[in-house]
Amino acid sequence: MNVDEAMALAVAAGERVRGTTSPNPPVGCVILDAGGRVVGEGATRPPGGAHAEVVALAAAGPAARGGTAVVTLEPCSHHGRTPPCTGALIEAGVARVVFAVADPNPQAAGGAEVLRAAGVRVEGGLSGEVVERGVLRAWLHYARTGRPHVTWKFASSLDGRVAAGDGSSRWISSPESRAEVHEFRTKVDAIVVGTGTVRTDDPRLTARTSRPGQDGVRQPLRVVVGKGDLPPGARVLDDEAETMHLRTHDPDVVLGALAARGVVDVLLEGGPTLAGAFTAAGRVDRVLAYLAPKFLGDGPQALRDAGVSTVTDAVGLVVEQVSMCGPDVRVSAVPAR
Amino acid sequence: MNVDEAMALAVAAGERVRGTTSPNPPVGCVILDAGGRVVGEGATRPPGGAHAEVVALAAAGPAARGGTAVVTLEPCSHHGRTPPCTGALIEAGVARVVFAVADPNPQAAGGAEVLRAAGVRVEGGLSGEVVERGVLRAWLHYARTGRPHVTWKFASSLDGRVAAGDGSSRWISSPESRAEVHEFRTKVDAIVVGTGTVRTDDPRLTARTSRPGQDGVRQPLRVVVGKGDLPPGARVLDDEAETMHLRTHDPDVVLGALAARGVVDVLLEGGPTLAGAFTAAGRVDRVLAYLAPKFLGDGPQALRDAGVSTVTDAVGLVVEQVSMCGPDVRVSAVPAR
Ligand SMILES: NC(=O)c1ccc[n+]([C@@H]2O[C@H](COP(=O)([O-])OP(=O)(O)OC[C@H]3O[C@@H](n4cnc5c(N)ncnc54)[C@H](OP(=O)(O)O)[C@@H]3O)[C@@H](O)[C@H]2O)c1
Ligand SMILES: NC(=O)c1ccc[n+]([C@@H]2O[C@H](COP(=O)([O-])OP(=O)(O)OC[C@H]3O[C@@H](n4cnc5c(N)ncnc54)[C@H](OP(=O)(O)O)[C@@H]3O)[C@@H](O)[C@H]2O)c1
Repeated sequence: MNVDEAMALAVAAGERVRGTTSPNPPVGCVILDAGGRVVGEGATRPPGGAHAEVVALAAAGPAARGGTAVVTLEPCSHHGRTPPCTGALIEAGVARVVFAVADPNPQAAGGAEVLRAAGVRVEGGLSGEVVERGVLRAWLHYARTGRPHVTWKFASSLDGRVAAGDGSSRWISSPESRAEVHEFRTKVDAIVVGTGTVRTDDPRLTARTSRPGQDGVRQPLRVVVGKGDLPPGARVLDDEAETMHLRTHDPDVVLGALAARGVVDVLLEGGPTLAGAFTAAGRVDRVLAYLAPKFLGDGPQALRDAGVSTVTDAVGLVVEQVSMCGPDVRVSAVPAR
Repeated sequence: MNVDEAMALAVAAGERVRGTTSPNPPVGCVILDAGGRVVGEGATRPPGGAHAEVVALAAAGPAARGGTAVVTLEPCSHHGRTPPCTGALIEAGVARVVFAVADPNPQAAGGAEVLRAAGVRVEGGLSGEVVERGVLRAWLHYARTGRPHVTWKFASSLDGRVAAGDGSSRWISSPESRAEVHEFRTKVDAIVVGTGTVRTDDPRLTARTSRPGQDGVRQPLRVVVGKGDLPPGARVLDDEAETMHLRTHDPDVVLGALAARGVVDVLLEGGPTLAGAFTAAGRVDRVLAYLAPKFLGDGPQALRDAGVSTVTDAVGLVVEQVSMCGPDVRVSAVPAR
């Protein structure tokens, strides 16, 4: 197997643990022996557990000697809760390390240098873009800014309504889109809404997938933002998952409280008020819009009070990807820089 | 050249005259000689002029004998302003006729039968779907319903606003999208807006393309709908194109008046009020939404009062095509049946 194929495996290994590793990154690692055979694979264990490289090296055993480690993130060289991965790689006698993205963390960085000094051939940047935008996206944002990464998801009609004139909004989008959102929920650390959404829709905010072993699905933290009380009996107060009520209107207070709990990846599913506050504060890092092929002609819009008064002041975005999700159009966009 | 390639040429020939033939269809025709060489090509001439088959046969001359006529619409067999095309094909000694879509017009239909009775091999349906949805779409709708085909075009932000909070709306969409709309305008018979759009935006509603020979661009009829007067000095009153003011609120009165003038293909560029009236009346046959990657968070929506009060009553659509137009997402959708 060549290193490109091995990197694809490593990315997939990291993807499988996404949502279980925060505040650590969901890294994946594949060990190829000197002949290019896969002899070990690993991914980050939950916090306190082993890093991907160590898991993969343990699987490979002596076969790692003279081989190649292919890993999605530059191996760490610092002593945190676990010993540095660079030491484990050197000790195992790995001859070459290929990684996708450099570690932006000043404490951890320098792994490549440490490896080179020990005579290991090191190459960075393989599939760098794929990993940056994909499996390590939220963690890289968090490592660079100290703030959790926020994906604002909304479902609207093609004429931009998130509910009808009478307030009804259930199932604006298709079963396919809703299933995708539930899969997405299994991968994030927290789901955030405003008290308005809890009052109007009384959502459960749990990840409900049709995958077998559904009971075992890890549930993200539920977060409700707003100064008002939650209605007694609100579904977010059940014991299907933990719920946090933050009595603030400041997105940065929300993100600070979440970062303090090790939350790296946030799915914002609030209504137009909360989405407006996050947008105006520049705290939406990605938008995921599910546009259902229907017209409502009345009802609330996805966004309210985003701090824009005239058309030339619009909040600029760049479309990253457009695709169909069942009958719906799915647009993924990021803020224009 | 095989008949598939010839049909692609015939479609392109029809496409070039789209916007100049109403109330006749923009048909394209290619004549292949007995050896499969292209010996003639033609498209519908403006009303009163020759049909595509006759133009192509004239170009082919005696080379048509024993050859194949490839044409986007079933040749007509009735005597209208011009003699029937079936007669011309038979007289020219064409051995085979391949067409894309059958003529839905009961008066003209039967062309295939007439040709077969004269010993010509006839096949229908080649590229039928492409032609149905493409170059003959508006005309087929008109032939089947007696009403012009209406494409409602709107440009909105990703959060569904067609103007900002202060009413400013110029250039919500990108230069690429605006250029595409101007190309679209050159292909339709009429552009329709409400008096509200004239009062707010004072648009010119002409087709302005960057193509050479821009002066020669045919201008569609401008139509303003509403009971109020047009502001004196409104740009639609200039002499760049003809303008019709229809003092009604009824979409069917509008379409009736346009059909009476031979209008087949309408581009609705009105604001939310007029778009709502057409939608509620079931008179939007296609939607072309240009979604600009930006947020406004305030301002009017694409659609108002579409006759929907609760989410389950939404006007259902089916997405036909999604693509990028520069930085914008372009969604083409049709009513769900
Ligand atoms: N289709 C979709 O994707 C989708 C998703 C979610 C919601 N919705 C719809 O959205 C509607 C609810 O809208 P909403 O705007 O009320 O929901 P929301 O944004 O989730 O909640 C609004 C509440 O959040 C609190 N809040 C937090 N930060 C704030 C700030 N910076 N400024 C002001 N208030 C702040 C306020 O509550 P306090 O008074 O308690 O402080 C406010 O009333 C419902 O119709 C629901 O169906 C649709
Ligand atoms: N981004 C875009 O794609 C786009 C395109 C067009 C307009 N716009 C924006 O839309 C806004 C204008 O909105 P608008 O709704 O006023 O424009 P509109 O729909 O073009 O015009 C509305 C007017 O049309 C007349 N009308 C015709 N049929 C009607 C009916 N069935 N019911 C009620 N009225 C009827 C009424 O005028 P009378 O009182 O004279 O009868 C009404 O005031 C502006 O901000 C403009 O920038 C945006």
